[in-house]
Amino acid sequence: MDCYFDHVATTPLRPEVLEAMLPYLKEEFGNPLSVYPLGVKAREAIEEAREKVAGLIGAKASEIVFTSNGAEANNFAVQGIARAMEKKGRHIIVSLMEHHSVLNPARFLEKQGFVVSFIKPDKFGLIDPDEVRRAIRKETILISVIMASPEVGTIEPIAEIARVARENGVVFHTDAVAAVGNIPVNVEELGVDLLSMSAHQFYGPKGAGALYIRKGLRITPLIFGGIQENGRRAGTENVPAIVGMGKAAELAQKELPQRMEHVKRLRDMFVAGITGEIDHLLYTGHREKRLPGHASFCVEFVEGEAMLLLLASKGIYAASGSACTSKALKASPVLLSMGVPAHIAQGSVVFSFGQDNNEEQIKYALREFPQVVKRLRELSPFGQGWGEMEGGLCTRKR
Amino acid sequence: MDCYFDHVATTPLRPEVLEAMLPYLKEEFGNPLSVYPLGVKAREAIEEAREKVAGLIGAKASEIVFTSNGAEANNFAVQGIARAMEKKGRHIIVSLMEHHSVLNPARFLEKQGFVVSFIKPDKFGLIDPDEVRRAIRKETILISVIMASPEVGTIEPIAEIARVARENGVVFHTDAVAAVGNIPVNVEELGVDLLSMSAHQFYGPKGAGALYIRKGLRITPLIFGGIQENGRRAGTENVPAIVGMGKAAELAQKELPQRMEHVKRLRDMFVAGITGEIDHLLYTGHREKRLPGHASFCVEFVEGEAMLLLLASKGIYAASGSACTSKALKASPVLLSMGVPAHIAQGSVVFSFGQDNNEEQIKYALREFPQVVKRLRELSPFGQGWGEMEGGLCTRKR
Repeated sequence: MDCYFDHVATTPLRPEVLEAMLPYLKEEFGNPLSVYPLGVKAREAIEEAREKVAGLIGAKASEIVFTSNGAEANNFAVQGIARAMEKKGRHIIVSLMEHHSVLNPARFLEKQGFVVSFIKPDKFGLIDPDEVRRAIRKETILISVIMASPEVGTIEPIAEIARVARENGVVFHTDAVAAVGNIPVNVEELGVDLLSMSAHQFYGPKGAGALYIRKGLRITPLIFGGIQENGRRAGTENVPAIVGMGKAAELAQKELPQRMEHVKRLRDMFVAGITGEIDHLLYTGHREKRLPGHASFCVEFVEGEAMLLLLASKGIYAASGSACTSKALKASPVLLSMGVPAHIAQGSVVFSFGQDNNEEQIKYALREFPQVVKRLRELSPFGQGWGEMEGGLCTRKR
Repeated sequence: MDCYFDHVATTPLRPEVLEAMLPYLKEEFGNPLSVYPLGVKAREAIEEAREKVAGLIGAKASEIVFTSNGAEANNFAVQGIARAMEKKGRHIIVSLMEHHSVLNPARFLEKQGFVVSFIKPDKFGLIDPDEVRRAIRKETILISVIMASPEVGTIEPIAEIARVARENGVVFHTDAVAAVGNIPVNVEELGVDLLSMSAHQFYGPKGAGALYIRKGLRITPLIFGGIQENGRRAGTENVPAIVGMGKAAELAQKELPQRMEHVKRLRDMFVAGITGEIDHLLYTGHREKRLPGHASFCVEFVEGEAMLLLLASKGIYAASGSACTSKALKASPVLLSMGVPAHIAQGSVVFSFGQDNNEEQIKYALREFPQVVKRLRELSPFGQGWGEMEGGLCTRKR
């Protein structure tokens, strides 16, 4: 049985979305800047998609700038506000729950003379708005806190943190890549100034993301050039992907309650079923304040990537949640910042459920997952304990 | 009759390219970073595309970084070298033939304390390598000259300019967006360090571009985050578009001689046919050193956008070559820098031919184009002369 349980990595494209995209991959190939009908049609398709994406998050169409993905939207927000406001101040606050596409531009800005404060989460991955408040200085120009963690599922108190920012006259950005299309997101209710999203996180295509920019907010482009996206993002638009993002947003808006109920039911069934079946299993993230289709664990005495590969051999596709793709087995910085010991963070595994999953798959995974863990613990050179450890780095050669 | 003569704006997607993309828009939807087979397959598809794109320009696969389009590649080159080398110096040289996506990041860097020298072309749009040499200072870190102008078709002496750069130890970038896939381009023969390209300029999809980065060259990313593209461009890859770019590169490499011959024949037929049929017609750009499918004119006593719209009403789709999409009728900076008077630059029109065009269409356009010009000259409030002019700006309200 094949079980795709990695919807935080990417989602399959909905057939309706591909259907909407196809004309723009075929006869409607015009450049949106061209004045003749082929160009006008492409431009109109983009504007229609913009309305739909804006509708999904309660924004105005003019507040949406399309990007090529969520990482670009995050970079645009962080670098763009830093550049636009550096004369006001050069202090930035980001949480340690952030994705690399927020953390790394912040670290780049540090090298350029900015000062960055990193806010630690609690053991559930929650950021305390009061800690954010205490970190604010006179020179603070930007606060960036992720809406929902793809690693541990925790949903942050964004409205509260945005209020803290607003009370102190600081621009607030949230990386909502894992949230938009999966939980309700409304920029007015949240009171955020900037919000990043990504189409392929909600059954839309790869190649399209967007940054919500509150009306009137000044931001420096990341990609300079032509007049596309109102001068805020140059380059010929990826018309088919943008159209696909619009269609995916429309579907998400319509189906959100059923989608959430469906994945929450599967997730709860999985978590309830696995509890007690595996020893030394740590459920990571917050129990209630979390993405509905998201279950994340640390399995002690098991190495995450080996677990993923053995699960995959059974047709169960999950993620480690850590960027464990380099040669060294690095533990996830997010888990470490939450206080999970490095040797336990190594055994991280994330199951993220989607529209296309069903109860049969959950039952299958509930049988296989404990078997996989048992097998790995028997085989592992770690046995029931760990080998040499050095800081957050496991030195075992692979 | 429908005549799409705007292949410098964008090209239709080749059916073979869409065919190659479709599996990645359907069942092969994995995230290339995932360890299970769905992810591995996506990663392998990207690497296969990288080989093909590298093959088209004589590069090594490891020297290709995929971007979302040509504008991003240009920004990455200009901003990335500036950031990586600013400790060495803060002087940059760009030509006035450049696209906005090179000029505008250069202007942004000027605001950040860099000094930019702008090199004027001659009346054919050619940049003199000796002028570039004279502009070089001890602090010069980057020279950027476009390979072929989409506005006037002129092909620059890139190998000579690259030699000047190399002799002076300066990094050299060329924007080859209009060139790659349309004329032979070989990075080794040219001796360039960085080269930008765009898939939708050679029958590939929108949403995929690439920057060639010579092995060993240090460059700062534009989009920071995950480990994608060897840490040089973060964000989930647009797998279908990258696969499409690879297929388009493969086709271009195979078909380039025939393609060039075909479009050159049509272009020459068009230019020969139109000569003498329209009074006060200026053929812009260089006669021989130009893109084979490219014919550009300035039609005196006619306003470019009105001409495009009337041509479009006859089914002939061409470009003005100027970014004439704002309310004010701005003359093209490229034409002005070549010494074309503003009132003549207003009447710019570019016909760019492609694989899908044929002689019938050329004959039709040869009949219709003079009629359109005649009609406009009769109707125009400019009559046989111009109204109020102010600098490069025509103040006539629309």
